[in-house]
Amino acid sequence: MSASFTGTPPLIHALWPAKAVLTAMGMLAEPYVKRHPGVREMLAATVYVALLGCLQAQQLQGHVSIILLGATGDLAKKYLWQGLFQLYLDEAGKGHSFRFHGTALTSTEQGQEVIAKVLESLSCPSDTAPGRCAELKAQFQQLSEYRSLKTPEDYLALSKDIEAQVQHEGLQEAGRIFYLSVPPFAYADIARNINSSCRPGPGAWLRVVLEKPFGHDHHSAQQLAAELGSFFQEEEMYRVDHYLGKQVVAQILPFRDQNRKALDGLWNRHHVERVEIIMKETVDTAGRTSFYEEYGVIRDVIQNHLTEILTLVAMELPGNISSPEAVLQHKLQAFRALRGLQKSSAVVGQYQAYSQQVRRELQKPDSFHSLTPTFAGILVHVDNLRWEGVPFILMSGKALDERVSYARILFKNQAYCAQSERRWEAEQSQCLPRQVVFYIGHGELGSPAVLVSRNLFRPSLPSASWWEVTDRPGLRLFGRPLSDFYAYSPVREQDAYSILISHIFHHRKDSFITTENLLASWVFWTPLLESLAREVPRLYPGGAENGPVLDFEFSSNRLSFSQPPLEQVVPGPGSAPTPSHFQVLTAKYRHSPLISAWPEELIARLAGDIEAAAVRAVQRFGKFHLALSGGSSPVALFQQLATGHYGFPWAHTHLWLVDERCVPLWDPESNFQGLQAHLLQHVRVPHYNVHPMPVQRHQRLCAEEDRGAQAYAEEISALVTNSSFDLVLLGMGMDGHTASLFPQSPTGLDGEQLVVRTESPSRPFQRMSLSLPLINRARKVAVLVMGRMKRDIAMLVSRVGHEPKKWPISGVLPASGQLVWYMDYEAFLG
Amino acid sequence: MSASFTGTPPLIHALWPAKAVLTAMGMLAEPYVKRHPGVREMLAATVYVALLGCLQAQQLQGHVSIILLGATGDLAKKYLWQGLFQLYLDEAGKGHSFRFHGTALTSTEQGQEVIAKVLESLSCPSDTAPGRCAELKAQFQQLSEYRSLKTPEDYLALSKDIEAQVQHEGLQEAGRIFYLSVPPFAYADIARNINSSCRPGPGAWLRVVLEKPFGHDHHSAQQLAAELGSFFQEEEMYRVDHYLGKQVVAQILPFRDQNRKALDGLWNRHHVERVEIIMKETVDTAGRTSFYEEYGVIRDVIQNHLTEILTLVAMELPGNISSPEAVLQHKLQAFRALRGLQKSSAVVGQYQAYSQQVRRELQKPDSFHSLTPTFAGILVHVDNLRWEGVPFILMSGKALDERVSYARILFKNQAYCAQSERRWEAEQSQCLPRQVVFYIGHGELGSPAVLVSRNLFRPSLPSASWWEVTDRPGLRLFGRPLSDFYAYSPVREQDAYSILISHIFHHRKDSFITTENLLASWVFWTPLLESLAREVPRLYPGGAENGPVLDFEFSSNRLSFSQPPLEQVVPGPGSAPTPSHFQVLTAKYRHSPLISAWPEELIARLAGDIEAAAVRAVQRFGKFHLALSGGSSPVALFQQLATGHYGFPWAHTHLWLVDERCVPLWDPESNFQGLQAHLLQHVRVPHYNVHPMPVQRHQRLCAEEDRGAQAYAEEISALVTNSSFDLVLLGMGMDGHTASLFPQSPTGLDGEQLVVRTESPSRPFQRMSLSLPLINRARKVAVLVMGRMKRDIAMLVSRVGHEPKKWPISGVLPASGQLVWYMDYEAFLG
Repeated sequence: MSASFTGTPPLIHALWPAKAVLTAMGMLAEPYVKRHPGVREMLAATVYVALLGCLQAQQLQGHVSIILLGATGDLAKKYLWQGLFQLYLDEAGKGHSFRFHGTALTSTEQGQEVIAKVLESLSCPSDTAPGRCAELKAQFQQLSEYRSLKTPEDYLALSKDIEAQVQHEGLQEAGRIFYLSVPPFAYADIARNINSSCRPGPGAWLRVVLEKPFGHDHHSAQQLAAELGSFFQEEEMYRVDHYLGKQVVAQILPFRDQNRKALDGLWNRHHVERVEIIMKETVDTAGRTSFYEEYGVIRDVIQNHLTEILTLVAMELPGNISSPEAVLQHKLQAFRALRGLQKSSAVVGQYQAYSQQVRRELQKPDSFHSLTPTFAGILVHVDNLRWEGVPFILMSGKALDERVSYARILFKNQAYCAQSERRWEAEQSQCLPRQVVFYIGHGELGSPAVLVSRNLFRPSLPSASWWEVTDRPGLRLFGRPLSDFYAYSPVREQDAYSILISHIFHHRKDSFITTENLLASWVFWTPLLESLAREVPRLYPGGAENGPVLDFEFSSNRLSFSQPPLEQVVPGPGSAPTPSHFQVLTAKYRHSPLISAWPEELIARLAGDIEAAAVRAVQRFGKFHLALSGGSSPVALFQQLATGHYGFPWAHTHLWLVDERCVPLWDPESNFQGLQAHLLQHVRVPHYNVHPMPVQRHQRLCAEEDRGAQAYAEEISALVTNSSFDLVLLGMGMDGHTASLFPQSPTGLDGEQLVVRTESPSRPFQRMSLSLPLINRARKVAVLVMGRMKRDIAMLVSRVGHEPKKWPISGVLPASGQLVWYMDYEAFLG
Repeated sequence: MSASFTGTPPLIHALWPAKAVLTAMGMLAEPYVKRHPGVREMLAATVYVALLGCLQAQQLQGHVSIILLGATGDLAKKYLWQGLFQLYLDEAGKGHSFRFHGTALTSTEQGQEVIAKVLESLSCPSDTAPGRCAELKAQFQQLSEYRSLKTPEDYLALSKDIEAQVQHEGLQEAGRIFYLSVPPFAYADIARNINSSCRPGPGAWLRVVLEKPFGHDHHSAQQLAAELGSFFQEEEMYRVDHYLGKQVVAQILPFRDQNRKALDGLWNRHHVERVEIIMKETVDTAGRTSFYEEYGVIRDVIQNHLTEILTLVAMELPGNISSPEAVLQHKLQAFRALRGLQKSSAVVGQYQAYSQQVRRELQKPDSFHSLTPTFAGILVHVDNLRWEGVPFILMSGKALDERVSYARILFKNQAYCAQSERRWEAEQSQCLPRQVVFYIGHGELGSPAVLVSRNLFRPSLPSASWWEVTDRPGLRLFGRPLSDFYAYSPVREQDAYSILISHIFHHRKDSFITTENLLASWVFWTPLLESLAREVPRLYPGGAENGPVLDFEFSSNRLSFSQPPLEQVVPGPGSAPTPSHFQVLTAKYRHSPLISAWPEELIARLAGDIEAAAVRAVQRFGKFHLALSGGSSPVALFQQLATGHYGFPWAHTHLWLVDERCVPLWDPESNFQGLQAHLLQHVRVPHYNVHPMPVQRHQRLCAEEDRGAQAYAEEISALVTNSSFDLVLLGMGMDGHTASLFPQSPTGLDGEQLVVRTESPSRPFQRMSLSLPLINRARKVAVLVMGRMKRDIAMLVSRVGHEPKKWPISGVLPASGQLVWYMDYEAFLG
């Protein structure tokens, strides 16, 4: 690294092949030396260098060209040239020769002027003497040039110049790096030119570096990826997420690896209480609204930066973290384990001045109100056994009260400390908070750091590059004084781009976004973005004024602001009255009790009624036989039963299916799958109390000769007294069907059969169903009807008589049991 | 209550029947009045009272006798007489007349002297004027007497005296309360005497009050209960746990009831992080070791006081909490939901001076070291859907650093607060701790209180008896300043015994321990007490010196001290080397690989090997077919797999049974039950991937004509390629059997059958089993052999050849798969 560089003679000339060195030595003959006083010393140094060069000549690895497109742009001026300089400092003398080509659309003259200034402003590592720094910069300047790069001819010319240079050096070409620091709309054109006119010859590599945004959603990202894929191989592309170059972020996997022993038992749902991945900014978007208005906070920083951190924290740790393939593969698996997001997984906000700024900058009318979020809190779940149930909280916003980014893993407090709290000590008390914090930067600490609570373990970090931070009295982080942590900061703070440029050079693909990972991220985020598109963000004043207005809370799958909404300035769609404004309505429908309410209350009521029936049945008979329908309405019911009913006697409940599609039970279309995913996984029903319909026997589906319907009927007869279920839950189709008994069905509407095979008008056609006569033996039948789509049939069925052939639902009338209709207002009132 | 008493004219005379009042008025004729100046005013008051008495005469409810046995003892002197006086203050004037009979074995004269002193020292409520207090005490003294109560004749005499008294008052007898403040060994005798000679007549009730200890374990408690049960009806007995009379403890259910709305959604596993039930004492047991040495901390305070609090917190709240039956019933259900305790559920300690104190007080030799715990921390789980997974931590100890008792419900932090921490405010920030604390007494607060974090809700408490505590600057409780809480204390602090005596009078049985609840508690605690009987407690210095030496941690079912043990002064049994001192040994056994280790490591290794096989199989074939044996050794394996293996591809794993007993699947003896309880409940194996053996068909067990074995064989053939399981886990019986293939079995040892019915030499005799030929088709067979009992057979089998008829295990030799033996050191080395 630079330490060794600044401490020993410069080895850069060693990159020149021996021939070039000898030529240089010829130049330095005596007359020349005489004419140029002081050059003798230089000669000595050069000879030394040349000798070293000879020694190293056999390991010379060829010429590397780095072409920076957009070399006069902001990003280039601020970070990239400095990063290239750093690469030069780090890598020169290790076997390659380098040339740096700054390019842009700007004319050569203008560009050269800009670049000259940039090169002059480069800085050396802080431990470099000023004179030495000037020398190094001069060397770098000599190897750097600017040229205008517009037309295919320009690319061809660049390619030829590189080849000439290589030949002149007597080297092989190692490869070319094209760093595209340009807007994405320019990608296609540039890519085409590189591909057709500027690829290096056989045996040399091509690396094309791309800067975000990489699309606006899954579709556009796919398009862009397809386009780039037509010019480059996957392994040629390096998509930059500069967060992956931040020292602390880049340390996450090495930290997990080097502290495997301590973390092995801790890094899982049994021990982790939550993970927070946070990026708070104080700035707002003034001056950038034309970009921001299109993107918003999720696309700007969450879909990329925070998601990358999420995967680094959550992924299974590969055996060998220095294998980029293994890392990328495990990362992809982490993406696949993410539970899909719903609208209720997020809260969004917008600082109050934002719309005004947009109106001003984008010349919008006074009536314009933006819906673009500048703040978002998101609850992510990782659905695997390691992380099941652990909330991952992602949060970012503009115009907040402080600037800070971190990923914080808070461990569960699983201790009881027998002494009074004031006697607890940081190193010993397991009752004080235990956390690992990847403190990415800024905040009260002011520098990047890895923090580990002292009561957790003493972490191991590479001692050459990380040092232990001494306490700063008065500084508190995450509820505790800094002295409660082992805290390590980088010995030398390095910019993310410098690190990434080094990784590009070293082919460390795991620090970049592969197409697969990019698309996986968009697959994850796009549905949320779509569902939030018309959501009105909560307004917040900005800065310290925000108070608790942006605080949010989560419970299982939902996230919501802690505080009730203030009066909103922006009127938005979808402000329907909430269920709690309404009472449950009870009435009659087809001469039976009808219960009607908003969906949430209706489901709560139905779940409560089922539980009451279950408790009664178990008290009286020791068991409860419940037959459930499939479909979407029951899902909410299953979830309600799974999470809200502690008194439900599941251990004594038998679950039966009302009907089933003739697909394997593991098919996502099977009714049983819905039951399993939303109910069985969350409650403890004994295996042998669960009775799926035997639609698959002998590897066949609903074959008559397999007598599945008869077998189910026999099972019912054997276990259910009088074949009389305690409760049957039915739905009603838009054609008046119920269970899988469709209009005009030749079976199941009457007769002796308890279970029948039927035909559905829609796929999958074959079904198995309880028959009407069996349903009507039940002690209680509940019919759940929800949604506006059911309104017409609900109205129609309210008027028809007993016509099961035409409207099978009209045949539901328990002989001695009770029938209750549960309809939401949309189905009942439309 | 006393407030009304001291604020209005005394109504005590109203207890005298109208006749008595008139007599009294006769006494107050003019001449008498003249002789006694000032008596006129008294007359007026008396007339007023007499009139009131007349008005109330029709509601007079008869005479109540309270017989306090052990009336000269410490408890009586300190609490019980005061409690009786309070009862008199509260209840006089409400319809009953009272007499208080102090009794003991002491002679009448001596006893009277003691009692007179006690009565003189009684105190009135703080708001009673001194003169008024003297008056009230005088009234109470008049109604109280002492008598010696030893012989059956004494009891008979007492009974006659009561009857005479009743007759003299012209009242009915309402009932008799016998308060037994005597050691338990005296119970039987007293009970017999009460029952035979001192029961009130028909129509009047009998209440017998008993003081703990109520036994030493389940057996002795049962004996005592049976003995008492032969004399008294259940409803006649009032077992006192004075903690139930503590104001804050008595408020737990009313608090839960009155704050139902706020608590309804919170009081469950989704929101509660932990419950702590704590009783810390600073005193040691000096002077009481003869009692303490027999009992220890668990019997002394945890089995009773802390367990009662546990049930009050955990029980389902009855609809009507003023129904004692409902409360007791729900409490009993809470007991039944407690998960059984194991040795690993507790940590125990003993203060260093304890053994010395015991030696001194009980004249033990210098070599004596007590194993009696003076400190215990216990992890309790309530196995129902409301509390599943929520740790209930019970802790108590002598010689700790502070005196305090509380029950603390800490809620999960499910919020993220967007502002910097220093801006959080107690009322608004959901990120500050949220807790409900029933602060029973002492500690830094110094008085009983109910505390509710301000960010939780404003609790409702009866405003007449509870007032809001104002902040005490500098006072911090549970990590937060007092100002963070809504804090309520009783307006008037009342002693627990006063409250309980009132509840006895009012027949509030829910404040007492029924026989059923007592035995349920012992059923719960006895196994732990037995398993701890020879456990060496950790020594602790006592007081603030303890440091973190008693801190403990829990993980799922285990609890352990946070700090490694210090050198123990008391040498104890069972200090065998721990597994981590040893390496896993690999060798050969019967020409196949043998892995040997201590049990914990062996299980870990086997689980790891199974997971690796699973991952490989799923990668190659998309599924993993695992056949598991029943029995006790696999239980540890199941638990290990359930909790430690996040990468296990359960969703793609099929589980098969190696063998099954011909009992219903829900029978605790069934192998499937073990699999379900220890594995299936904790992982997500799809329902249809679980393949129990069909031992029960058509309501019959293993009937040949039901062809269950054939059906299982067909299922295997249909789903498992080549009927070759990926892994079969076997055990080895002491007779050399494996699976359910016993020596000399006519089936299963060879032939074509894949699944067979077999006979076991032990119950249940009928079995179903995979056959040896099927087992030997597996890709991998693991044989797990654990425990010293297996040593002989392990040695024998190591020598025999292929003799499956004699030693079925010797027939295990996969045709093309791998066989691995997993034996713990005890089985392998003996």
